[in-house]
Order: sequence, then C-alpha cells, then structure tokens
Amino acid sequence: MVTTKKIYSACLIIIGNEILSGRTQDKNINHVAKELFICGISLKLVVVIPDQKKIIISQIRKLKNQYDFVITTGGIGPTHDDITSESISLAVKKKYKLHYGAYRELKKYYTKIKSELTDARMKMAYMPEGSKLILNKVSGAPGFKIENIYVFAGIPSIVQAMMKEFKKMIKIKNKFYSTTIITKLFESKIAHILVEAERKYNNISIGSYPIFDGKPKGVEVVISSQVNKLSVSNAKKFILSEINKII
Amino acid sequence: MVTTKKIYSACLIIIGNEILSGRTQDKNINHVAKELFICGISLKLVVVIPDQKKIIISQIRKLKNQYDFVITTGGIGPTHDDITSESISLAVKKKYKLHYGAYRELKKYYTKIKSELTDARMKMAYMPEGSKLILNKVSGAPGFKIENIYVFAGIPSIVQAMMKEFKKMIKIKNKFYSTTIITKLFESKIAHILVEAERKYNNISIGSYPIFDGKPKGVEVVISSQVNKLSVSNAKKFILSEINKII
Repeated sequence: MVTTKKIYSACLIIIGNEILSGRTQDKNINHVAKELFICGISLKLVVVIPDQKKIIISQIRKLKNQYDFVITTGGIGPTHDDITSESISLAVKKKYKLHYGAYRELKKYYTKIKSELTDARMKMAYMPEGSKLILNKVSGAPGFKIENIYVFAGIPSIVQAMMKEFKKMIKIKNKFYSTTIITKLFESKIAHILVEAERKYNNISIGSYPIFDGKPKGVEVVISSQVNKLSVSNAKKFILSEINKII
Repeated sequence: MVTTKKIYSACLIIIGNEILSGRTQDKNINHVAKELFICGISLKLVVVIPDQKKIIISQIRKLKNQYDFVITTGGIGPTHDDITSESISLAVKKKYKLHYGAYRELKKYYTKIKSELTDARMKMAYMPEGSKLILNKVSGAPGFKIENIYVFAGIPSIVQAMMKEFKKMIKIKNKFYSTTIITKLFESKIAHILVEAERKYNNISIGSYPIFDGKPKGVEVVISSQVNKLSVSNAKKFILSEINKII
C-alpha cells in the first residue's frame, strides 16, 4: 500500500535566558509536543535559545523553510528584554508596527481589569505588518501568526490558551496511532523481540523506555505509527506473544 | 576595566523521540542548566532531536565546533533504538568498539545485582575508540567523553550522577553572579527603570519575569553577570531605589 497521507512537520523555538540559566523549569515543551501529537503533526525539533536579536533572526530564517509550522514561545511582553516580535519582523522582512486589532484587545483587557494601557504595554500591540492575531482569554495580550510562524507568550497558562487557538487556525484533522506495553522484564531481555517487530511491520516506530527506580524495574514499550493503525495493533500482539514465551 | 576572564560555552543535545512526541516530560534541561550556571559555564543552546542516526551525526558535527562543551542525554541503553554511541562514533570518525573499562564496570554491576551481562547489555560497553568513561553509581553503565562531547544517559537520576562526574572532569572554577528582586508592581510600570539600569552598569544582563496567577501579580527581576559582582549589586541598589520612588 502506498501512503498518500501528508505528515505535517513542526519545530518549536523556546526563547528565554531564564530556561538556559536554569532559573526556570520549562513547562511548555511537553504541552506543545502532546498537542501536536494529538493533531497528527510531527514535532521534529525543539531549540532553546537566548533573548538575542541576531540569534532569533537566524534561527527563524533557517527553520521556517525546513518545517511546515514553526511555533515560538516567550519574549512578547512589555519590557526591554521582550524582543521576539521585533526580531521576527526583521527575520521575515516586514515592518514592525502597531496592529490595531491587538491595540483594541489590550484596551478592552486593561479597561476590564481597571488598569492603564501604558506606553510599555502598548509595545505588546506591535508586530510584523500583516500578522494575524492569536487571541487568548488568559492575559488579553495576543500572540500572532506571520507566514508559517506562530508566536506565543512564554507563560504556560497562556501558551496553553494559544495552543487551543492554533489548533482552530490550522484546521488539520490527522491522527497518529500509539499503544503501550509495560513489562517487568528488563530491556535487555526483550531487545531482540523489538528489533524483530520493527522489521516485521511497516510504518511503525518502537521506543523502549526503562522503568528505573534506584534500580531497573522493567520497561515500557511504545509502538506508534503516523499512518497505520493496523500495524500498531499487530505489532503489539506479536510483542506480547513473544514476551509470554520467555516469562 | 578590560575583562580577561574566559567564559566557557556549552550546548545540550537531548536525544529522544519520547520528548518530541510528548510522552515524556523533560527533566534534564533544568538540572544541566543549573549545574552549568553554578560552574560559570554559559549554556547557549539546547536542542531536542529524534533518535535518528543522520540527525545526531549532523548536529554533533556542527555543534562540537561551536561550543566549548557539548553534552548529550539519551540513547545509550541496550535496545535497538539506542543509537547515540554509534552515531557519535561516526560523527567524530572513530571506531565504534568495545571499551574494556566499560565492560569491567558492567560486569561488576550485574554481578552485584545478581543479574546477567547479556549480549544486549554488552552493547552499553561499545563507544568511540579513545573515549574516557563517565562513571555513575546509579546504573553501572557508564557514559563517555570523546573530544569535547560528554555523552550521558537519559534517565534523570543517572544524568544527575553523570553531571557530578562532569564537574570533576572539567576542573573549571568560575562563577556567575546573580540576584533577584521581587516587586508587586506590574512589569510595564518598571520597564523604563530596567532599561536605564542596563545602560548604566557594565557587563550585566537583566531579565524580567511576570508573576502570573490567573492575572498579573507582579514581577521578578533577575540581575546577572558573568564577570562583575559589583555591577550586579550596584544595579540592584539602583533599581530598588527607583522602585521605591514610584510605590
């Protein structure tokens, strides 16, 4: 069978000195990865880079041509170290300018929470010309989409809200298939079975993850496929029956 | 004052489909980042890549020339998807062969836990010719160093043990300076103060991180320097006195 299903690819760029210095534990990679998996989009690469204009620009220019979707998190707030929007404008060679829709969103939000739309906050309405807003109900300050680049905030609850919007925007209905086997046998005992299963079945990938709690406690085997549900369930049956032979 | 202190740079490569698919929440980035910060080594880049030989080889070849230290995690276990050691041998053009020291470590470990050193487990003693072992007391299976590349396991408790060994091996005594200010003022209210502080003091970098719990609750300001302790404390004094003027 020839597979005609298109598998979309994605790359995630985490922009933040605070992750690289160890000050902050990243909580966004896992959420974005899970959500992309649910959409049937293959996350191929994550990079964590500092808040530096030159580095952001060079990464964006390189990665937007290599993946169907590029998602960035971080650096779109009101302070001096929030340089993501300006850097992305430079990367895609669009004017960095006031987006009236974003301005209205901010106005509405700060009126609601009885606070002032200061000059610093106005910065959050600036983005590359032609951007489409990525709204979120958590903070009022929108992210944006330009070309195939989706620009999110860095705060996890806002990333989660923006990821919901992303899923509405892309309108891809795809599905990956995945199943798990847990066994108390050591990884080394079943290694040959996994090799055989991967040879025997098409379009599947098998990951083997030791369960380790001071010492080895067994292994979790994940069988997945981006295209073929039947291969996944057949491979599972095969592995289980081979494991039963050696228990 | 001319700064002559050499700042070493590092890059971390997380090898693992399980992170990219969202199955596993990464716990290694933050630990490695913190430990490097303590050593005074500047972590410049993190990449998360799949368990694919071609990709591992190309990333290693590129990044080992760009940073003083390259650390990898994941993919050095006994199963078919553990291809890191072989890929790194290819990347550095060294024979992928049995390391007798590693073999002895494994033999010792499996004798101690009354288990067998199977063929699959023997795989963990193979690495690039000329590698230096990175021992760890947690699992018995050593990581290794070749050129400026430090190859760790993926399991967090083992990464932590190997990071301890790394610190002994590199013998760098350096120090970064960092201090934090927490204020209930919103980020946008103090933005101009931070800009001024960064202009006023040399060799410092200021990060501003909103405290967000459903709505903005204030901001954490982190002032750090890789070379100058005095600038950090002077900048802190300046920012605090400016904040007090507007409270």
